[in-house]
Amino acid sequence: MTALRHAYLGPPGTNCEEALLALTAGSDIEAVPHGSEREAILALDGDAVHRAVVPIENALEGAVTGTLDTLALDVRDVRIVAEVVLPIEHCLIAGAGTEIGDVRVVVSHPQALAQCRRYVAGELGAIEQAATSTAEAVREVVGRPGHAAIANARAAEIYGGRILRRGIQDDDGNATRFVLLARSGDEAAAAGRTGARHRTTVVFWGGGDQEAGWLLRCLAEFADRDVSLTKIESRPRKVGLGRYLFVVDAAGAEHDEAVAAALEGLASHCEEVRILGSYPSA
Amino acid sequence: MTALRHAYLGPPGTNCEEALLALTAGSDIEAVPHGSEREAILALDGDAVHRAVVPIENALEGAVTGTLDTLALDVRDVRIVAEVVLPIEHCLIAGAGTEIGDVRVVVSHPQALAQCRRYVAGELGAIEQAATSTAEAVREVVGRPGHAAIANARAAEIYGGRILRRGIQDDDGNATRFVLLARSGDEAAAAGRTGARHRTTVVFWGGGDQEAGWLLRCLAEFADRDVSLTKIESRPRKVGLGRYLFVVDAAGAEHDEAVAAALEGLASHCEEVRILGSYPSA
Repeated sequence: MTALRHAYLGPPGTNCEEALLALTAGSDIEAVPHGSEREAILALDGDAVHRAVVPIENALEGAVTGTLDTLALDVRDVRIVAEVVLPIEHCLIAGAGTEIGDVRVVVSHPQALAQCRRYVAGELGAIEQAATSTAEAVREVVGRPGHAAIANARAAEIYGGRILRRGIQDDDGNATRFVLLARSGDEAAAAGRTGARHRTTVVFWGGGDQEAGWLLRCLAEFADRDVSLTKIESRPRKVGLGRYLFVVDAAGAEHDEAVAAALEGLASHCEEVRILGSYPSA
Repeated sequence: MTALRHAYLGPPGTNCEEALLALTAGSDIEAVPHGSEREAILALDGDAVHRAVVPIENALEGAVTGTLDTLALDVRDVRIVAEVVLPIEHCLIAGAGTEIGDVRVVVSHPQALAQCRRYVAGELGAIEQAATSTAEAVREVVGRPGHAAIANARAAEIYGGRILRRGIQDDDGNATRFVLLARSGDEAAAAGRTGARHRTTVVFWGGGDQEAGWLLRCLAEFADRDVSLTKIESRPRKVGLGRYLFVVDAAGAEHDEAVAAALEGLASHCEEVRILGSYPSA
């Protein structure tokens, strides 16, 4: 049997690659890096790969909007089949000749820079420079004296960087939730664990959303049936300021009696209701 | 009288500077650029400036999280006193010798790159490079053949760039909402227009937020009194995955009878309820 091709947010050495390894442990897979969450999801939607792994939520920065928006608005045939939560440890990484006292410029993805700002500006007194990913930042700094990157330990190993310091993030408790995606027809084959407690992720919009109390009526469909919502996110529908879509995580599986009834009730208020997945929660 | 100092998201030439000019038209002010929304707001909180102008929401990208998180979690004495909505037109900008057919690398803030991806990757066939702001991107490209920046027309003028093409964003209808901030004691003096329809922005969290139906009980305080919510946003409380704070925009002024009663009701469910401002809506 050929190895299943898995799209992920690359290049090699990202936290997303670590999540991919965790979600597919033991299987013979081919990892295919992509430049953005959107590209990874579209590769799956367009049959170029068998699965995709992307980040969906970070404990400090919130929703990963590239993932949510693509799942909600740009694909119809892709489902979440599993999830994993990884703790995020940012490291300061440089080339062979650079010691911690030499660092004048710190390079990383803007989100990683934002998560380490107190350390970089305060303790280190260095200036920030943007890169397109944390792994790319390590690749850029290894040959440049006085430059250091913020990335994970794996990126240091892959690109020949040296870890000057671990755990430089300003807040502890940083973690990211990643999801494994498959095409709908393939969902049963892709789903690994069964029997665990399930979570159902739903996106909805429209109908009477310009009327007072509309969102309340939507959420009441869950509350009236004692279905807990563990998360609610509003995102622009990209049709102008003030028009939103909502993404909720409901406790329970899609075909549980209470969840199914809540979804049916929800549909009566909305122009669109779509199930992004029903999967064992991490 | 000395000119009032206004912090904004710089450098000169950003859309935020345009919003500052729109919000203070005709007044004698001093514009003080800052490197992030957070720094601009902290400058106001720390008395280094009299006012601040920052983006709070974009029609395509949603909440500006640096603004929301700083207002919700890091300052207690800062209030929104006015708002303005600006349409965003992204331009492709280069130095004197570079024509549109020469462009191989496009430099900009990651959000602007994301908003023009179909044009840059598709029509132009160029690769992306990150910068810390759109204005900074123009500064970087003017001396580099084959490089172009994505920024607004004003940045081209300030940094000596030439506009190769206007309106290169993938979706029309892009606009950003900016807010004018003042310290609480200064709020009356800072508020310009009166009599217009007001909006009240509120942040709340905690209490029974781990119980089923908690968010519904919070929102019902508004709906039961016919107070429309024009926006709801959830953000991480930065104490671990699954713990959120909520930011809502309610139609009406803080001391309107129905709004005041809803806020009192809300307080009974929450650990914290804070009014971020009550101001004439744009």
